[in-house]
Amino acid sequence: MRIATLTSGGDCPGLNAVIRAIVRTANQEHDSTVVGYRDGWLGLLDDDRVDLYDDDAIDKILVRGGTILGTGRLHPDIFKANLETIKANLADARVDALIAIGGEGTLKGAKWLADNGVPVIGVPKTIDNDVLATDYTFGFDSAVAVATDAIDRLHTTAESHKRIFLVEVMGRHTGWIALHAGLAGGAHHIVIPEVPFDVSEITKSMERRFQMGEKYGIIVVAEGAQPRPGTMAVDDKGVDEFGHRRLGGMGQLIGEEISRSTGYDVRTTVLGHVQRGGVPTAFDRVLASRFGVHATRAAHRGEFGSSVVLRGEFIETVPLSEVVAKVKTVPMQRYEIAEALFG
Amino acid sequence: MRIATLTSGGDCPGLNAVIRAIVRTANQEHDSTVVGYRDGWLGLLDDDRVDLYDDDAIDKILVRGGTILGTGRLHPDIFKANLETIKANLADARVDALIAIGGEGTLKGAKWLADNGVPVIGVPKTIDNDVLATDYTFGFDSAVAVATDAIDRLHTTAESHKRIFLVEVMGRHTGWIALHAGLAGGAHHIVIPEVPFDVSEITKSMERRFQMGEKYGIIVVAEGAQPRPGTMAVDDKGVDEFGHRRLGGMGQLIGEEISRSTGYDVRTTVLGHVQRGGVPTAFDRVLASRFGVHATRAAHRGEFGSSVVLRGEFIETVPLSEVVAKVKTVPMQRYEIAEALFG
Amino acid sequence: MRIATLTSGGDCPGLNAVIRAIVRTANQEHDSTVVGYRDGWLGLLDDDRVDLYDDDAIDKILVRGGTILGTGRLHPDIFKANLETIKANLADARVDALIAIGGEGTLKGAKWLADNGVPVIGVPKTIDNDVLATDYTFGFDSAVAVATDAIDRLHTTAESHKRIFLVEVMGRHTGWIALHAGLAGGAHHIVIPEVPFDVSEITKSMERRFQMGEKYGIIVVAEGAQPRPGTMAVDDKGVDEFGHRRLGGMGQLIGEEISRSTGYDVRTTVLGHVQRGGVPTAFDRVLASRFGVHATRAAHRGEFGSSVVLRGEFIETVPLSEVVAKVKTVPMQRYEIAEALFG
Amino acid sequence: MRIATLTSGGDCPGLNAVIRAIVRTANQEHDSTVVGYRDGWLGLLDDDRVDLYDDDAIDKILVRGGTILGTGRLHPDIFKANLETIKANLADARVDALIAIGGEGTLKGAKWLADNGVPVIGVPKTIDNDVLATDYTFGFDSAVAVATDAIDRLHTTAESHKRIFLVEVMGRHTGWIALHAGLAGGAHHIVIPEVPFDVSEITKSMERRFQMGEKYGIIVVAEGAQPRPGTMAVDDKGVDEFGHRRLGGMGQLIGEEISRSTGYDVRTTVLGHVQRGGVPTAFDRVLASRFGVHATRAAHRGEFGSSVVLRGEFIETVPLSEVVAKVKTVPMQRYEIAEALFG
Repeated sequence: MRIATLTSGGDCPGLNAVIRAIVRTANQEHDSTVVGYRDGWLGLLDDDRVDLYDDDAIDKILVRGGTILGTGRLHPDIFKANLETIKANLADARVDALIAIGGEGTLKGAKWLADNGVPVIGVPKTIDNDVLATDYTFGFDSAVAVATDAIDRLHTTAESHKRIFLVEVMGRHTGWIALHAGLAGGAHHIVIPEVPFDVSEITKSMERRFQMGEKYGIIVVAEGAQPRPGTMAVDDKGVDEFGHRRLGGMGQLIGEEISRSTGYDVRTTVLGHVQRGGVPTAFDRVLASRFGVHATRAAHRGEFGSSVVLRGEFIETVPLSEVVAKVKTVPMQRYEIAEALFG
Repeated sequence: MRIATLTSGGDCPGLNAVIRAIVRTANQEHDSTVVGYRDGWLGLLDDDRVDLYDDDAIDKILVRGGTILGTGRLHPDIFKANLETIKANLADARVDALIAIGGEGTLKGAKWLADNGVPVIGVPKTIDNDVLATDYTFGFDSAVAVATDAIDRLHTTAESHKRIFLVEVMGRHTGWIALHAGLAGGAHHIVIPEVPFDVSEITKSMERRFQMGEKYGIIVVAEGAQPRPGTMAVDDKGVDEFGHRRLGGMGQLIGEEISRSTGYDVRTTVLGHVQRGGVPTAFDRVLASRFGVHATRAAHRGEFGSSVVLRGEFIETVPLSEVVAKVKTVPMQRYEIAEALFG
Repeated sequence: MRIATLTSGGDCPGLNAVIRAIVRTANQEHDSTVVGYRDGWLGLLDDDRVDLYDDDAIDKILVRGGTILGTGRLHPDIFKANLETIKANLADARVDALIAIGGEGTLKGAKWLADNGVPVIGVPKTIDNDVLATDYTFGFDSAVAVATDAIDRLHTTAESHKRIFLVEVMGRHTGWIALHAGLAGGAHHIVIPEVPFDVSEITKSMERRFQMGEKYGIIVVAEGAQPRPGTMAVDDKGVDEFGHRRLGGMGQLIGEEISRSTGYDVRTTVLGHVQRGGVPTAFDRVLASRFGVHATRAAHRGEFGSSVVLRGEFIETVPLSEVVAKVKTVPMQRYEIAEALFG
Repeated sequence: MRIATLTSGGDCPGLNAVIRAIVRTANQEHDSTVVGYRDGWLGLLDDDRVDLYDDDAIDKILVRGGTILGTGRLHPDIFKANLETIKANLADARVDALIAIGGEGTLKGAKWLADNGVPVIGVPKTIDNDVLATDYTFGFDSAVAVATDAIDRLHTTAESHKRIFLVEVMGRHTGWIALHAGLAGGAHHIVIPEVPFDVSEITKSMERRFQMGEKYGIIVVAEGAQPRPGTMAVDDKGVDEFGHRRLGGMGQLIGEEISRSTGYDVRTTVLGHVQRGGVPTAFDRVLASRFGVHATRAAHRGEFGSSVVLRGEFIETVPLSEVVAKVKTVPMQRYEIAEALFG
């Protein structure tokens, strides 16, 4: 059998671990070969591919962030307009199964290909953890670890200077990183897109802390946090009332508002892309490796149109339709756990 | 309500996060108070306790390894002989519910207390991850992270010197740490108690590597690894044929045997207690915090005789009997995932 | 003898290690006692102090970032107008020697006090490493480590997406952090205040990389980087030509300019306060501890008006006047080392 | 010009950073080429070499531990018996200058080659920091960081269990790693080869701690620690009185002795090879990179027979004879700094 793979969408710690596991499993368990398309769907369209061998080089990528295949984004319309090219390229490369590794957009593409007769298996990937049907996506744990490390550092500097620190973390549509990093980092408030915020309530919670004798506060904000309608004189695009683009999403704005209304010394840190790079955590390497092994086995069993997912302790395969049905948001119950610990 | 808590058995990253979550949740959600018994069951017998307040000091323990309450071990017979003392002490301290945080032994004790009318909730804890009914125990991820970091370091030194490195990790009865750290660290062989080893097979797998041009090998061994009967001239207690106690468990012995039979330069590293200390990973802090919140809520709901567990994405409560029924071993299927990647 | 100490100016990993070393050395070597003033010079003016004991609590602060004494800033005029209050407070607390831990401003204050008859010893501290007469200040190594870790992470994400990343690090007046983190992180260009930049030259160096087949670039920028006069339509305060304050100093502006003129996908990360918080590196803990021991010994020898400094392998004491003469900038020769490695 | 380089002796974080800096500087500053000999002096004898290009692959080795050239050991007699082969191989490869990167043994070999007319420059390397004439060797800071991290982890587990932990670190002849890791890790006692120990004194210091109410102790022991003559019933080879080889050097023996004479629960951790592998610290990457640039420049200036060294803030070149005169031991004065902080 000949397996093709590609990585698409934003990069994510663990992508290389999946690629390595696919190559290893294909070669060792099934005597199959693997070809990788470069830069996501783009490489599939342009027939830009490279043979992947089960050698020392592939062994070493386990610990490397990013993806050796590169990644890219492609407009769904262009993608769909090129079905015949895709099929021709796969046929030309004698590919029997395609393992597509990516986030919601990529998996929707994978489903569409499967619906149109291409033998595809999906592997969910996103640091945002917002993919349905799987308990976790790899990359999420690494992103949370980076954000938590930053929050740990800010505690001591905040306390020494009697300041409030806002940490803006990734998460445009969901608050998974903010919630878990905030929980792990002992944040005194967490703001996520799923729970629209009223800045006056955040301010009150900080004032309550200071009144009880605490000397500092840590607030974690997902970049996609949304103000409750009517509570803030800015829209959700980071543009202020004068039309000037503001850097740093909601974190900066909330920080300035708290500072303005309370007089506290408030600083904002926007973590940015460091959250998606670097050496994956052990957790993510294990999850990504297991995904890679299982996806390769599923390909050899012919379970096309499905995706590997983590359910409890086990990796299972489910139809791609279950995975891309909608974005997985933070349930209110989980946010209430965090609230119980704001202190 | 008045809640008592204690930590018993080996220490484990995340214990303090549970204690903090109990104190916070009790105070903020339920207006309850919390008392801690020192050194596990010993403190409960000796009435050695301390009131735990929801203050800045408790907030800061989230990131600290170990347990501020101390821990200890107590023989089950002594424990059971003192039921009346335990009940009297709890009554004297006006305790309405006891949250016992510990491993299999502790939870068996908790179940016995519950069976004898003491209002107990269990929180499973072990770096070994061998507790039934929960997907993960906190502490495990931190232990795997430490072991993986060590394996990462040994790769480059092994390769530069063309050596085989054996890394002995914790795990007397189960191979969870060895398996996950070995998977995450890209080990070329993993030896776990669940799969008795034949040292000649390990040697062969290393020879195969070297014949294929690879220049080094990494083998991860759980301390409780067992030779297949008749394959090794030593017993499983780390005592050689002359009755001398050997330091370092099976790792050292396997290493010496491989070196003897192949002539390779083999080095053994016994990781030891660094695996159970230090700052918990973000994953463990989140899991421990959620356990603490849920155990406190379960106490207020009167769900005595139960334990909190992780099932998929959710924390649930199950009868303590389900948790202590037997040790959770590595399923063969999971080991085969690792085998697929030995390379 | 009775020793007082205080920490002033921006916080810095290692401050607590100095405090611990002072308390330990005073108590164990000299049978002296130690008192700490809170929030820098403010506590000295307000007589806000706390006795520091050589106990388990002080032992544990070695690894904690920030300062248990708090820190603050005080205008030199107010400081100087209160000489008599300061002297009275020190007399009231029966202080025989004051060890002032701080950066350039603090040490200037310390020198002024010494000139006016107060028995002062200085301990230089700054993450910026810009204090004259000492090879290194503690805190610098920790800041470089944090920045380097961030750069490491950005390499893989930059490469996967074929992007240019700008990382803005601390350093308003000097480029020490940018230079060392850039060297350690393998930056492809480093911009420091000591070498005014021309954005077109940075752009050219990136274009050269891309022409040679490289697929990404990492640029490290000190926040105080200065454009060569006439090369950029913005002034050095981060305010654009329309008078709008821009967040994120020079990094953001340089990034936008490169993107505008080349069309490359350029992202900017402003590391911010994470560089000054958190657990100090081993290097900084050792240096800070040695500073504390030596400062305490110097106090007992009566070497007032001096500061401890690191010279090669040894800690020495020099007159405070040598330490505060001017800011230590990056020598051109050192920058040329970095240039040799831009690649 | 054509430069050859090799890495010899034990591996060490930062070796690859030197190689990268040599290749970069040679190519970019001097339009020279670089060839690498494999496995230290062995490759030079066997003419086993590889051309090193200034490409993306060389750029990426900055952060990798170990050495891409491999390393090895060669008996000085064999080495010296092959002078003509060495000269012939260098001539055959048209090498104008050889940069030898290694520890004391390697640099002695380099000096001997220089004395015999081979154009050699030395770069000192050792995790042990025991090379004369340089303030630090790269690799040392990384080894100290790993050991310190381990000690940090043991603090919390020691405290929770009321135990004494012995940590045995590398250092057969000198105590640099033990001293600095012990200082950084807040050890309560440090045992180094330069100061022969009496186990009864270590025991007393632990008993003093326990009597003062402390509940645990951390002791750091260099593997080459020596008992004061007549104080211990074992010799210094790790062989007990019955002639059985003991694993783990002195740490294990000291631990058993303390346990035997006091009854405390004492555990020993032998860190081993994890200290010499893995990603180098930022400090070591900067130092190694600077060494590489300066050695390449020295080669182009024809300063053969010299070695680069760190002196204060600057890299200088000194005759190789100064570097190999003797081993650099820990000065008593520095050990007394540590003693002042044992607590």
